[in-house]
Amino acid sequence: MYRQRLWSVLAKPSNIPNSVAGPSRNVQCRKIVFEEFGDPIKVAKLVEDTVPDTAGDDQVIVKMIVAPVNPADINTIQGVYPVKPTLPSSPGYEGVGEVISVGSHVKHLVPGDRVIPEGVIGTWRTAAVFRSSELVKVDKDIDIHAISGISSNPCTAYRMLHDFVNLNKNDVIIQNGANSACGQNVVQLARHYGYKSVNVIRKRPEPDLGNLKNRLTSLGATYVLTDEELRTTDIFKSGALPKPRLALNNIGGKSSTEVLRTLDNGGVMVTYGGMSREPVIVPTASFIFKDVQLRGFWMTRWHKQNAGTVQRQQMYDELSKMMKDGELVAPANKTLPLESFKEVLQNTMSTKGYAGVKFFLDLQQL
Amino acid sequence: MYRQRLWSVLAKPSNIPNSVAGPSRNVQCRKIVFEEFGDPIKVAKLVEDTVPDTAGDDQVIVKMIVAPVNPADINTIQGVYPVKPTLPSSPGYEGVGEVISVGSHVKHLVPGDRVIPEGVIGTWRTAAVFRSSELVKVDKDIDIHAISGISSNPCTAYRMLHDFVNLNKNDVIIQNGANSACGQNVVQLARHYGYKSVNVIRKRPEPDLGNLKNRLTSLGATYVLTDEELRTTDIFKSGALPKPRLALNNIGGKSSTEVLRTLDNGGVMVTYGGMSREPVIVPTASFIFKDVQLRGFWMTRWHKQNAGTVQRQQMYDELSKMMKDGELVAPANKTLPLESFKEVLQNTMSTKGYAGVKFFLDLQQL
Repeated sequence: MYRQRLWSVLAKPSNIPNSVAGPSRNVQCRKIVFEEFGDPIKVAKLVEDTVPDTAGDDQVIVKMIVAPVNPADINTIQGVYPVKPTLPSSPGYEGVGEVISVGSHVKHLVPGDRVIPEGVIGTWRTAAVFRSSELVKVDKDIDIHAISGISSNPCTAYRMLHDFVNLNKNDVIIQNGANSACGQNVVQLARHYGYKSVNVIRKRPEPDLGNLKNRLTSLGATYVLTDEELRTTDIFKSGALPKPRLALNNIGGKSSTEVLRTLDNGGVMVTYGGMSREPVIVPTASFIFKDVQLRGFWMTRWHKQNAGTVQRQQMYDELSKMMKDGELVAPANKTLPLESFKEVLQNTMSTKGYAGVKFFLDLQQL
Repeated sequence: MYRQRLWSVLAKPSNIPNSVAGPSRNVQCRKIVFEEFGDPIKVAKLVEDTVPDTAGDDQVIVKMIVAPVNPADINTIQGVYPVKPTLPSSPGYEGVGEVISVGSHVKHLVPGDRVIPEGVIGTWRTAAVFRSSELVKVDKDIDIHAISGISSNPCTAYRMLHDFVNLNKNDVIIQNGANSACGQNVVQLARHYGYKSVNVIRKRPEPDLGNLKNRLTSLGATYVLTDEELRTTDIFKSGALPKPRLALNNIGGKSSTEVLRTLDNGGVMVTYGGMSREPVIVPTASFIFKDVQLRGFWMTRWHKQNAGTVQRQQMYDELSKMMKDGELVAPANKTLPLESFKEVLQNTMSTKGYAGVKFFLDLQQL
């Protein structure tokens, strides 16, 4: 439907001369680029570009629909992410699009397929050329906001619940930053597996606090506590809940110390973010006498080490099914047109941007 | 030799009346006791006691020779160790003695055997009654200072080098507090296995610094660096050494952060002490992007979980052989008579006590 409409727009000949001589014509598209690392508001620009109208042998031409904006994108533009692209570059590790044209060697995709790019950078554009191996076909019935971000937050939540502690039904997990995009996935996956979740959030004024608690509870949170409530809670002492065997730390600093304190003997804390910009502080006695383990997780490394593996496909299948069944929903989100990218960047960088609302770029040209 | 001499002293009838009626007479001994937790100098006392002169069915009567004084003993008397004995209690988790008398059910020991107690408290005494299962027979050819402390520091060093990272010859390990009793065992075991060791110590005035470096080098240390030298060394950058895969942390605070910084991607830091009394501080990026793991180790838990296992016996056999072959020597030590226990406690508690000299109590009555 909108595919036809959009492509008819995309297919207009570019005003920019085609630098490659040949039978294929180029069609116009738009993208975000940055030519130097720095403040995203200053260095990111919206520019015109072109893609060919016919795909080469192993190529797939995709018109993009929507792309999430993650903190990792911000850090990449700032030049502080461990992955540093060659400049000039286009940002965006995630997104969802529809196949327009496939090369003669491409077997697993046909025009009209819905796809997500995997292991690439540069999704913040209205159309793109990918190698077929860079695309995963996804179900058209799944909400585009949920599926476009599957490779980061849902996958991170999934792996952290699978790869560190052998959890059983009714086991307890605890996490801080529970209202983050990843945190909301953890809540829903924990409910799906029958784990009890203790979810820690920053205190905020009412009615925001109550609304956030209600939202997380509706997603499946067993308990939602502010940092201060965690310090004084008796849910573990009273025996209302067994002590957590797994803690997920997205914040660092004091918050991580408090979360760590609740862990059961032999428990594991996995750090996957550091929003407070403070290090993780661990009392020596926790290591020696409680035998806690501190580990870290980075989804990018996992994807790199597990490209094309069976367990990667199993994860995507399971998460996709949950999304289709409505068991795993995208975080509360706001989608703005590509032209408003500065507003999106600003919101993702500000504290406000982390308050449970995730921003997306609408990549459909009108 | 001295066994006969000592026992003849021990065998003098006690002046304290025997409260148990029966054919066996009690013989006098002396022991350290504490009736309340607190400052060891104030609460620890030397008192007279008795042991029976004939062992019951499963009992073994042992005259003690020597006992090491460890920080764990100090903490136990202070009441800050996780193991809290019933009061009044006698301190001392380690020691070595000779069997004087065995009960009729005891098969694996005979009078004259040299033994170390395992999993008990109360070795700071001149004679003791043990259950036979609490004693491990050891070789008389092994230095008494080395063998008496085998269950703590040598075993801790052994397990930390075996249980966390699968190390190969020429792999690199790093440790702080390298001049501690455990650290000296790590140095010698690393040499035995062909690992390169980077050993971090506190700066101190000359000639002490040079002497300590020489001593650790003579034990097998590959490098000995002060904390400051570690911060500026180029041994890892220059390629002189691969990055360490295992770090052993006995200090905490800044020292542990510096040691952690040198770890290879995927490396493990094991915390087994906290001499600085400061927590371990870990940058979030180390967890996420370097995938380091932080673990803890407590020998007491391992002994409890592995009592009577094959791997425990293998460890004792291997360490005993190394001691017998002169490959694993006791730390520089000073042995004082039981009467001087306050001086020993004072030295073990003071910074000076950690400066590479370990104190022992001489338990042989004159």
